Amino acid sequence: MSTLEEDLEAAAGVPGSTGPGVRRARAWLTRAVEPGTVDLWRYVEDVGPVEAVRRLRSGVAPASIRSLAGPRVDQDETGADFRRAERCGARLVVPEDDEWPALSLHALTVAAAQEPLERKYQTDRTQALIPPIALWVRGAARLDEVTDRSVGVVGARAATAYGEHVAGELGHQLGERGWTVVSGGAFGIDGAAHRGALAAGVPTVAVLSCGVDRPYPAGNGALFARIAETGLLVSEWPPGCAPLRHRFLVRNRLIAALTRGTVVVEAAARSGAQATAKRAQKLGRPVLVVPGPVTSALSVGCHELLRDEDVDATLVTSAAQVIEAVGSIGSDLAPLVERPASPRDGLSDLATRVLDACPVRLGVPPERLAAIAGCDVLEVLRVLPALELAELVQWTGTGWRLTPAPKPTGAAP
Amino acid sequence: MSTLEEDLEAAAGVPGSTGPGVRRARAWLTRAVEPGTVDLWRYVEDVGPVEAVRRLRSGVAPASIRSLAGPRVDQDETGADFRRAERCGARLVVPEDDEWPALSLHALTVAAAQEPLERKYQTDRTQALIPPIALWVRGAARLDEVTDRSVGVVGARAATAYGEHVAGELGHQLGERGWTVVSGGAFGIDGAAHRGALAAGVPTVAVLSCGVDRPYPAGNGALFARIAETGLLVSEWPPGCAPLRHRFLVRNRLIAALTRGTVVVEAAARSGAQATAKRAQKLGRPVLVVPGPVTSALSVGCHELLRDEDVDATLVTSAAQVIEAVGSIGSDLAPLVERPASPRDGLSDLATRVLDACPVRLGVPPERLAAIAGCDVLEVLRVLPALELAELVQWTGTGWRLTPAPKPTGAAP
Repeated sequence: MSTLEEDLEAAAGVPGSTGPGVRRARAWLTRAVEPGTVDLWRYVEDVGPVEAVRRLRSGVAPASIRSLAGPRVDQDETGADFRRAERCGARLVVPEDDEWPALSLHALTVAAAQEPLERKYQTDRTQALIPPIALWVRGAARLDEVTDRSVGVVGARAATAYGEHVAGELGHQLGERGWTVVSGGAFGIDGAAHRGALAAGVPTVAVLSCGVDRPYPAGNGALFARIAETGLLVSEWPPGCAPLRHRFLVRNRLIAALTRGTVVVEAAARSGAQATAKRAQKLGRPVLVVPGPVTSALSVGCHELLRDEDVDATLVTSAAQVIEAVGSIGSDLAPLVERPASPRDGLSDLATRVLDACPVRLGVPPERLAAIAGCDVLEVLRVLPALELAELVQWTGTGWRLTPAPKPTGAAP
Repeated sequence: MSTLEEDLEAAAGVPGSTGPGVRRARAWLTRAVEPGTVDLWRYVEDVGPVEAVRRLRSGVAPASIRSLAGPRVDQDETGADFRRAERCGARLVVPEDDEWPALSLHALTVAAAQEPLERKYQTDRTQALIPPIALWVRGAARLDEVTDRSVGVVGARAATAYGEHVAGELGHQLGERGWTVVSGGAFGIDGAAHRGALAAGVPTVAVLSCGVDRPYPAGNGALFARIAETGLLVSEWPPGCAPLRHRFLVRNRLIAALTRGTVVVEAAARSGAQATAKRAQKLGRPVLVVPGPVTSALSVGCHELLRDEDVDATLVTSAAQVIEAVGSIGSDLAPLVERPASPRDGLSDLATRVLDACPVRLGVPPERLAAIAGCDVLEVLRVLPALELAELVQWTGTGWRLTPAPKPTGAAP
């Protein structure tokens, strides 16, 4: 295999190159500098990935950029990273590739442009909305296609049975209706949502905060293998990287950015899911929240989001309502909740009063109905035919009464 | 006892009279015409209650007003009604009385003024916002005082254990904080809210759709007796009246009008509680809704309200949040939900990365931390003292590691 420097050299003279040099440069960057670092992303945008790596490696990059990589600037594990990726069926997808989800991620480019130049005024890296340098992906699907009509489903790891049930149902029904579930592959809500989608026989996407060759948590190993069969495992970190805590937060912005909206299923007070939801909102994506019992600590964060006047969160109770919120206007309307139709529906005030005046057993004359209902006998006589037609009242021969309810038709003993 | 006509005659010449004639006239009207009838209310406003009854009884009232009473126009049960009321410790409160809750009910007067003159364009009586002609009340409290700082709590009769628990807690905590719970005395949410308030040792108010001498449902008889001891049973219908179905709907507007806001705890799809909530909104009172599991049919109506863009409903999860919504601005703020403080809170991105780089057992040198955290050794040396001070990391003699978690101090076996 050629060395990093050879590949860079070969690509350096070719503006707009999409060859191995560009891919290798971006691969090196994913390990050298923590994702979500706005100054590095700007430097790469400015001079291009190949030139950025050449300058970092040769020491001519500005000190402020060199310090982002620290001692990693002298290391090169790209060869090993590509081999590890190949062994587990993974590849590196770069912005220069056709399958790069440029449309979805454009919102991050717009958001990153708003970051101040001075570092001390910039958003904390765990919260900043910065595009990824490249994405390591493992699985059968094309990244742009599988995330095109997709919804993020996020929530607590220590979920309740209720939360896992709802997440599983959502995942299944979103899948059945042609929507991809994107989540974080964690225990609890994430896993339940992925499993629901897989049960519907559709691809799902897990965005990880560690290498795609050693997906975390190990307890979800079988799940990750199934996801990779039809969907994708996605990570900004190269193979072998550990799921450090700060990486979860950085990762979450990608779930928001890759999807058309984010659903929070269960979240404790002041949880990471809330932060993810707020970033989705900043990206202009709908924030959808599943409520739960007010007695459940795992729904407190959801209810906080729904009460937060700074967040325009929408309460959702079903996949249909999720799709209505993220789908195309007009084509994805959720059906209204139906109440069983009753013959009483649409009765006038007068008819309702006459009906309420009718006794259950013994019939009474219209004059008595008028006295009870508080209206004129002529009015009673006017509404009775309609009530009889609707089979609400009947004439007993001596007076009017309510029509008896039909007897149950169960098998007699 | 004097006859109705004698009392009317005595009061007829006295403008602004608050004597027995006025009270008797209004008592007669509560039985002669169904409450919520805008044309009758306007007629009474126009000519006064005494004159209205005199004209109805003598046949000189317009036919359109006479027809509202139908055959009841020739009946007079006021004597019996007052005796029945007296027997159960009830009284009639009229707008001319000091204890009439004029301030709360003024919103109904404003709303009634917007009803068209032509009957066919008027709101259906079960939905119309018309002030009561008079109120039969039974119990120890003064009507205006007990409803001054009050909240309506409404919901399903066929409530779940969850709903009853939440309603009971709300009633109790609202009571403890000096707020009166107003509800409908029904099974389910109503009863649980009343019981919660009684358990807090404070008055509560049940607004009924039947006579206060025979409160419905009979199964809540002991509850009604306890409510009357310190609070009030309130009804627009005279003693002896039956709880006909259309009367529930008419009654509901009073719960909305007498309180500073209405809380819906559990409601099925398209239920009466939703209609009550919408009328509260029309009266300018906050609509507060308790969410529940999306898997519960008894929370569907609550979630519909929270999703309805025509209703400005607020999700609430506690009495504190209810009081924040209905209370005085500034004095009744609900506390923010707290997350247990963690030493990690407020750490910089760099400090978090160095912390995450520290191993659990064997200490490692700062150079290694820099390589893992992706930063300069000098930066590592800069943040380590703060991490040590926060007892997050410790020096082992050969390197840095995470501070071990304290051992549990349970009793040894």
